[in-house]
Amino acid sequence: MATIKDIAAYCNVAVSTVSRVLNNHPDVSADTRDKVLSAARNLHYVPNSSARDLAHQQTDSIGLVVRGAENPFFTPIIRAIERSCEDKGYSMSLHQIPAGEDEVSEGAKLVQSKRLKGLILLGGRYDYTREEVSTLGAPFMCCSYTNHFGNLDRTSFSSVSINDKAEAYRAAELLIECGHSKIAVLLDSIHDRSISERRYRGYCEALADAGIPLDEGLVCETVDFSMKAAYERTIRLLEERPDVTALFSVADSMAIAAMKAISDAGLSVPQDISIIAIDGIEMSLYTTPTLTTLAQPQALMGEKAVEILVDVLDGKASHSHVRLETTLRPGGTMGRLHP
Amino acid sequence: MATIKDIAAYCNVAVSTVSRVLNNHPDVSADTRDKVLSAARNLHYVPNSSARDLAHQQTDSIGLVVRGAENPFFTPIIRAIERSCEDKGYSMSLHQIPAGEDEVSEGAKLVQSKRLKGLILLGGRYDYTREEVSTLGAPFMCCSYTNHFGNLDRTSFSSVSINDKAEAYRAAELLIECGHSKIAVLLDSIHDRSISERRYRGYCEALADAGIPLDEGLVCETVDFSMKAAYERTIRLLEERPDVTALFSVADSMAIAAMKAISDAGLSVPQDISIIAIDGIEMSLYTTPTLTTLAQPQALMGEKAVEILVDVLDGKASHSHVRLETTLRPGGTMGRLHP
Repeated sequence: MATIKDIAAYCNVAVSTVSRVLNNHPDVSADTRDKVLSAARNLHYVPNSSARDLAHQQTDSIGLVVRGAENPFFTPIIRAIERSCEDKGYSMSLHQIPAGEDEVSEGAKLVQSKRLKGLILLGGRYDYTREEVSTLGAPFMCCSYTNHFGNLDRTSFSSVSINDKAEAYRAAELLIECGHSKIAVLLDSIHDRSISERRYRGYCEALADAGIPLDEGLVCETVDFSMKAAYERTIRLLEERPDVTALFSVADSMAIAAMKAISDAGLSVPQDISIIAIDGIEMSLYTTPTLTTLAQPQALMGEKAVEILVDVLDGKASHSHVRLETTLRPGGTMGRLHP
Repeated sequence: MATIKDIAAYCNVAVSTVSRVLNNHPDVSADTRDKVLSAARNLHYVPNSSARDLAHQQTDSIGLVVRGAENPFFTPIIRAIERSCEDKGYSMSLHQIPAGEDEVSEGAKLVQSKRLKGLILLGGRYDYTREEVSTLGAPFMCCSYTNHFGNLDRTSFSSVSINDKAEAYRAAELLIECGHSKIAVLLDSIHDRSISERRYRGYCEALADAGIPLDEGLVCETVDFSMKAAYERTIRLLEERPDVTALFSVADSMAIAAMKAISDAGLSVPQDISIIAIDGIEMSLYTTPTLTTLAQPQALMGEKAVEILVDVLDGKASHSHVRLETTLRPGGTMGRLHP
């Protein structure tokens, strides 16, 4: 593949002349322009996108910052965003960071260095401040979460997510309807100002509405979302609380680890312990029994994120906030409590 | 955040002057240089990396093209590569493509547009030709696979992988040692010129060495690596061949789907069917029973890939090829056949 220097040598003109032609500058003769463009074709020149970016100063790119790329929940969302960007005529610039890192500062760097038109943050914090997002420098969209614990003006950004609290309420309610009252909850932290805290509140509210007192010994915090921590915390729960009959896990992956812990403790799902979760990842279709879970509409979430952001970028609509609903994916982990 | 134009206006100099200062051109007075650099600091100027790339023409970046990013097997390898690049003073430019796409043409584009020094391909084809990789334009490394079915000169690239055939031989041999002879194999295709074909050959050789004739009814091709296809193919195997007592799966994820199929068919692992796989992903630690598998050294694979490639880039060593060994991760899916 040829460089700009090869084309210059081939045409016997200056490198700067080739550059002017390739960047559509007007001050080049028609003859020279034809000669250079024909050489670029013949030599299979692929433009350096750095040079192209610099010439245009603004590409039609949307940035996607994924926080916690190893999370299988994000895979179908990323695919849907990629596909939708393409459909809308935008290129997508994907940037993945570990779960603990700062998606806002990464996003700000990405917007400036790649001259992005807009930004989708996938899997971020729920508590952004106005000051911090003001550094972003482009319209942005929170995908799979929203600013529940922050102070952003709702007209200054968009979001697509489920209603964490309402969905957790529904999960706990389904267990209660099966006769359970000793219902444990498996989560990161009740004060994480994020998914766990929101879903914990839904769990608490469902118990309260059913007249079941909150039992702190059944609140299982794991400090992180790892399967290892979920496994160990469930083992401890079973040792400490042999009266537990049901478990609500805030994530499918943690529920899979909990099922393993229950089996290793010599107990059965759902005969001894019923389980329900929220997410709907592919892997939880293949547990035995199949995990009963409230499945998030992952592909739709990705499509909506692009649709809304592109409408904002194209000036067709203002920022907006969409709440999607989960679908109960029936499995075999939930059973009626036999008194 | 300020642009180069803001700095020019602030200092009352031309934009081209600011550009010359920021790109370390010599033809600027010391006074002007100081004024511009001080303004850049005061205005919190963040250099546009496109401009920076153009100025240097060559950054200290290694590209990583991941084919099939949704494969959980790659996650710990990507992390190790990222960490190792950082340790070695290189930045890593990550690019993910779907499993069916062409990592070589993507890699070539990436090398040219981002002026990469070297390239790591993670999860690619086993049959590159000399012609096709000649377009890459930078030293490259095949990570997790090698050029077994291609015609590359071994001195023209590096690789880190396991010996697929030898490891599959070992997996089948472990089942044979437990008394099994009706051993099915679950794979993509026996002619995929890739992982499945290599591991199939190891399986065949182990059977042959044990005097067990190859039984084509026990060779289960799935056309792809999806869990859905693995599940359906296993269901069909159990219907067609009630005499099967063991299964070797070329991948953990397919083995997990097979376990579900066996359970849904009313059979038990390992009482009715023993299972062994190759990979060692996190999820297969949480199946019931735990999957017995030959675990690949994923982190070491990533570290070695960077180490070898950086030595090549720094001129410290020639290209080389490293074969790593798996470790038997004992689980509960393999049992002795009781006659």
